[in-house]
Amino acid sequence: MSPTYSQIDPPSRLLMGAGPANVHPRILRAMATDVIGQMDPEMTAYMDETMALYREVFQTKNHWTLLVNGSARSAIEAALVSLVSPGMKVVIPRIGRFGLLLTEIVHRCGGIPCTIDVEWGQVVDPAAVEAAIIEHKPGLVAAVHGDTSTTTAQPLAEIGAICRRHNVLFYVDATATLGGMEFKTDAWNIDVATAGLQKCLGGPPGSAPITLSDRAVEAILRRRHDEAGIATGQPQGDGPVIQSNYFDLAMLMNYWSPARMNHHTEATSMLYASREAARIVVEEGVDARVERHTRAGRAMVAGLRAMGLRVYGDDATRMANVTGVWVPDGVDNARVRELMRKDFEIEIVSSFGPLTGKIWRIGAMGVNAQKHKVLLTLAAFEAVLAGEGFNLPRGAGVDAARAAWDAA
Amino acid sequence: MSPTYSQIDPPSRLLMGAGPANVHPRILRAMATDVIGQMDPEMTAYMDETMALYREVFQTKNHWTLLVNGSARSAIEAALVSLVSPGMKVVIPRIGRFGLLLTEIVHRCGGIPCTIDVEWGQVVDPAAVEAAIIEHKPGLVAAVHGDTSTTTAQPLAEIGAICRRHNVLFYVDATATLGGMEFKTDAWNIDVATAGLQKCLGGPPGSAPITLSDRAVEAILRRRHDEAGIATGQPQGDGPVIQSNYFDLAMLMNYWSPARMNHHTEATSMLYASREAARIVVEEGVDARVERHTRAGRAMVAGLRAMGLRVYGDDATRMANVTGVWVPDGVDNARVRELMRKDFEIEIVSSFGPLTGKIWRIGAMGVNAQKHKVLLTLAAFEAVLAGEGFNLPRGAGVDAARAAWDAA
Repeated sequence: MSPTYSQIDPPSRLLMGAGPANVHPRILRAMATDVIGQMDPEMTAYMDETMALYREVFQTKNHWTLLVNGSARSAIEAALVSLVSPGMKVVIPRIGRFGLLLTEIVHRCGGIPCTIDVEWGQVVDPAAVEAAIIEHKPGLVAAVHGDTSTTTAQPLAEIGAICRRHNVLFYVDATATLGGMEFKTDAWNIDVATAGLQKCLGGPPGSAPITLSDRAVEAILRRRHDEAGIATGQPQGDGPVIQSNYFDLAMLMNYWSPARMNHHTEATSMLYASREAARIVVEEGVDARVERHTRAGRAMVAGLRAMGLRVYGDDATRMANVTGVWVPDGVDNARVRELMRKDFEIEIVSSFGPLTGKIWRIGAMGVNAQKHKVLLTLAAFEAVLAGEGFNLPRGAGVDAARAAWDAA
Repeated sequence: MSPTYSQIDPPSRLLMGAGPANVHPRILRAMATDVIGQMDPEMTAYMDETMALYREVFQTKNHWTLLVNGSARSAIEAALVSLVSPGMKVVIPRIGRFGLLLTEIVHRCGGIPCTIDVEWGQVVDPAAVEAAIIEHKPGLVAAVHGDTSTTTAQPLAEIGAICRRHNVLFYVDATATLGGMEFKTDAWNIDVATAGLQKCLGGPPGSAPITLSDRAVEAILRRRHDEAGIATGQPQGDGPVIQSNYFDLAMLMNYWSPARMNHHTEATSMLYASREAARIVVEEGVDARVERHTRAGRAMVAGLRAMGLRVYGDDATRMANVTGVWVPDGVDNARVRELMRKDFEIEIVSSFGPLTGKIWRIGAMGVNAQKHKVLLTLAAFEAVLAGEGFNLPRGAGVDAARAAWDAA
């Protein structure tokens, strides 16, 4: 007997966790558009326009600004597998779980990770990165911008300048911050940056923008080896073969070039979503969007503190779009999350590793970085905590957040 | 100055090429649904239901039937990188471009491809596969079912039996046939099969179903090494580390298990699409759907022949859902395709490698494997060919196709 299931009809839930956030309705409507052929002129025009739009989102002049077809970590792996050849040393400043992920992927690529660790909640001193570059002579420095596991953002400008001075390529995972925090690919001397749609860009998970500097492209093209079924006699590289076909950025760039070497079939609906997400960012303006996320983060912190809660991490390096807050003594982390979901249809989340069960993370990103969503989330959170016996001044959180949002 | 672009609004084109085909409207509507959190109970329930639905689509009892987040070739690479360890021999019967792709990926995984080649348009004799197994003692046989580059389908049942007899794992790329031609994972002794949504399953490109037998799972779990940031102390394997993180099926299975180890963020909208696509297949019935595609292919072949054209390949091994047809002398392949698009908004395509410019490929799959779409495509094709000076009996193609569709 065949299984029978009803049509997709999930609850209308407010996603104030660490991502995915709710999707902008315009992006949902874009995805509901029928597909066209991958080599049709309208499709390749959409690809070119998507490149132009993401140049603005990434604040870069990089020609090679495109999409990897997969979740955010697909672009992380595409960047690393294309840049890291076997035996290459990679310096990795680590501020949380996603620094561990970079280490893991470098290791699987045959690279040698040289890690710089700090206590979770802290960031890495650029001087430590420079010392590691001098000690290890790496081919690459790979860092996470905002690590949602610790709600902390690593300052990048100084590290970028150091990398450029020492002529080392610099990769940054900007999944959790692009479109929500200041991120200046060119000004910060970042050679490769990757992201995902499902955080501050306001789209669904499953498409991963990437941008590559000319220096990075040169390094990758030295490893160009087109697959036999589609090669067209273009010049090949003499470097080691990239160990992934799907993530081979040399071939992906060719597919996104006028040559249109037919690598994979572009994920059309996710391309529509990615293009629409960037179009919304550009219409709002990158600076205005960052300002909106900054207000949301500031309001969240003010509200949580007014409720008598202790906010996680340092004010100076806190992410704007995800706020960590310590679970007070005597309150059950999981039960509070469940009540937020059941009684208020609001998702908040916990964290990983040493922070499992110790903090909640409350996000406000993309279409959710709006005043009313922050205030309503705090109102619900207050009610749940009060119901769980936590002693707090009723109404103070919402009032403080409201004032903080409006502050200049 | 920011670039400004209009909203997504492609032409309403009939996609009768080699895929993607037009998307079923129900799937488009499913994608327009807002996302929910990846660990929300409704989301994990959708994941479990998707597994159950694809078991029916793949005609298997395999528990491990899930999605890889990417284009069809993402699942090919996930299967091969998880199964093929460095130095492992892999026997690859090759009937077209996608056999070259399997070779390429095996090579990049550090495996040793042992290829069996035939002239394009032919299929591989199972006896040759058995001889290669005896000669090379491979760890895996990897084959393509329907290779769209040659519009030819490799018979699989006998090869599957041979693999089982010699205790060799059997991987099949069913991207172009699943949901449109008979495909029996269990009955044909296939250990791992992968597909894509954008052909006979009627969805958009960008999600890749995969099914794994217990034998395959056992081999993959020997290589299980959970990444440091998310490991939960479950037993690890003692085999070589899988060289990709994103495509590590041991971790992906864990994410799709009740343990829900938080690997990547599932591509929610594409999961909605994949689930709806399978729901439509199951509602129609796999056998009825295959029958519909069979009629479409039969009608297409009859119509093309009645127009005086030579159909590519052998009747016995021709794919149902994509038909190749030789370009007649004096007719320009590219110009005909352009006129089909410009005057009729119908996409047909050429092919690759030795067949570049030599044949057209006309597909009828998913929602496009319908009588009226086949007939209207042939009517348009006739008009364009006649306009290009090809001498044909007007009306004969459509009449023949109409009769062939209705034949028992």
